Amino acid sequence: MPTHTDAPLLILKIGGSLFSDKSRPGSLDEKAFDALVRLVADLHQAHRGRLLLVTGGGAFGHGALRGLDPGDPFAPLPFVDATAGVRWRWVTRLTDRGVRALPLQLGAFSRVDPGDPTGIAACAEPLASLLAAGVLPVLSGDCLIRPDGALEAFSSDRTPEVLIRALGAARVVMLTDVPGLLTGGPGSDRVLGFVDALDPAPAYAHVWKESEWDVSGAMQGKLDALVACARQGADCFIMRGRPDAVDLRVLLTPPAEWPASTPRTRVALPSKEIP
Amino acid sequence: MPTHTDAPLLILKIGGSLFSDKSRPGSLDEKAFDALVRLVADLHQAHRGRLLLVTGGGAFGHGALRGLDPGDPFAPLPFVDATAGVRWRWVTRLTDRGVRALPLQLGAFSRVDPGDPTGIAACAEPLASLLAAGVLPVLSGDCLIRPDGALEAFSSDRTPEVLIRALGAARVVMLTDVPGLLTGGPGSDRVLGFVDALDPAPAYAHVWKESEWDVSGAMQGKLDALVACARQGADCFIMRGRPDAVDLRVLLTPPAEWPASTPRTRVALPSKEIP
Repeated sequence: MPTHTDAPLLILKIGGSLFSDKSRPGSLDEKAFDALVRLVADLHQAHRGRLLLVTGGGAFGHGALRGLDPGDPFAPLPFVDATAGVRWRWVTRLTDRGVRALPLQLGAFSRVDPGDPTGIAACAEPLASLLAAGVLPVLSGDCLIRPDGALEAFSSDRTPEVLIRALGAARVVMLTDVPGLLTGGPGSDRVLGFVDALDPAPAYAHVWKESEWDVSGAMQGKLDALVACARQGADCFIMRGRPDAVDLRVLLTPPAEWPASTPRTRVALPSKEIP
Repeated sequence: MPTHTDAPLLILKIGGSLFSDKSRPGSLDEKAFDALVRLVADLHQAHRGRLLLVTGGGAFGHGALRGLDPGDPFAPLPFVDATAGVRWRWVTRLTDRGVRALPLQLGAFSRVDPGDPTGIAACAEPLASLLAAGVLPVLSGDCLIRPDGALEAFSSDRTPEVLIRALGAARVVMLTDVPGLLTGGPGSDRVLGFVDALDPAPAYAHVWKESEWDVSGAMQGKLDALVACARQGADCFIMRGRPDAVDLRVLLTPPAEWPASTPRTRVALPSKEIP
């Protein structure tokens, strides 16, 4: 398995829906969570120093963002603590499995920067050092400061944008509860294979409104985020996450070799489209 | 009161001993803590955008560092969560008083760098932005990653070193439970007025060993840290913190004007010694 520096940097985002029911406060599916921890631990051992984990907030993150006062520029503050709790949960479980993992607060090394083409300023300290030392950085959504002093709730879907801004291009895999961008609406099983990050409008036609308890914009938020990542040169995928998978090591192989039986939506620059 | 950018950057470190008994797990003196929050809130209003708060860990931080396995390079990990909890406690109380405060994880924007003269690499994102927006950054001790992948428990006494590395020279005031560096041993009331950061050896002669439940090295750790800060150009003070003080605004005035009746130890480059 690749552990050298030529191996792709892999940002693995695990959707909160895979271990928590957003509509139920405090919900955590212990069995699914433990299975996901095992998969991440295995992937880290196979790809040490090239893997970053981004966890969704599930019920914890969404709960902290519901019903905010739109007139209070600091209203999202509770999201800082809620996401820290989810990161720490991952770190303690990963530590139990022998993984050296460190939680990192996104808002402590990045900020909103409207003057930058990506809209973000971020530094590589100490992300790059953690990776060089073979430690798994564990990230999540967080609040980022804006130039006007307001806090912006930055969802875990957008966290890869910050990591790429800090570290450079990467492969981004978002594991969620659907197999990709569905072209037939809810319940459909037809998945859009490719989204051209320079011309994503056709893909947006397939995005529909999610439930009212979902504050992340769900698929639209994912698409926005991955288009932004791809425009920074990243190769991005939305796939269904399966806690009962044997392992996730296929994600380390060239995407052209991934089994055709595994649906996914790829979001990338047009040069990456497979004819 | 100065709120312009010529005002000194003030790093205020509040010792855990002022609100928590290190020898008693989970100890928090609610009354003292609330009084300290009030003092910090007032100081922030008077010096908005030029103040950074560093909180000691008290029983929480010390408890997380006791009895660690010296053979485990990741043993200090619980310190990450313990210090996050103390930061969050400050932030919620400050928020209750109308202060816009944001907790920041030190280890997310800095690391140990033996190749740097200060021994630290740190970036100014987003510290400088928070200050520019008039937000109070709330920091503490934390774990920093070393090049060999080990975690180094970085005490709150050392946190100002990192902030100065990121932001440049500043005034550092450490409020603790003694009036300064005592020249007559424990219980003495004679305070050493000045420590030359380029020749601190005479000052170290007055440092004695603290209790066994103290993992921070107490006064020796403070002296080490402030010498390092002063060598980066900072003007540093150790003083007794009084939760029942009217306010702390004297700390914003030129030190030459501070009342002679207030003992303190100044640690600075020799050019700052008052004849």
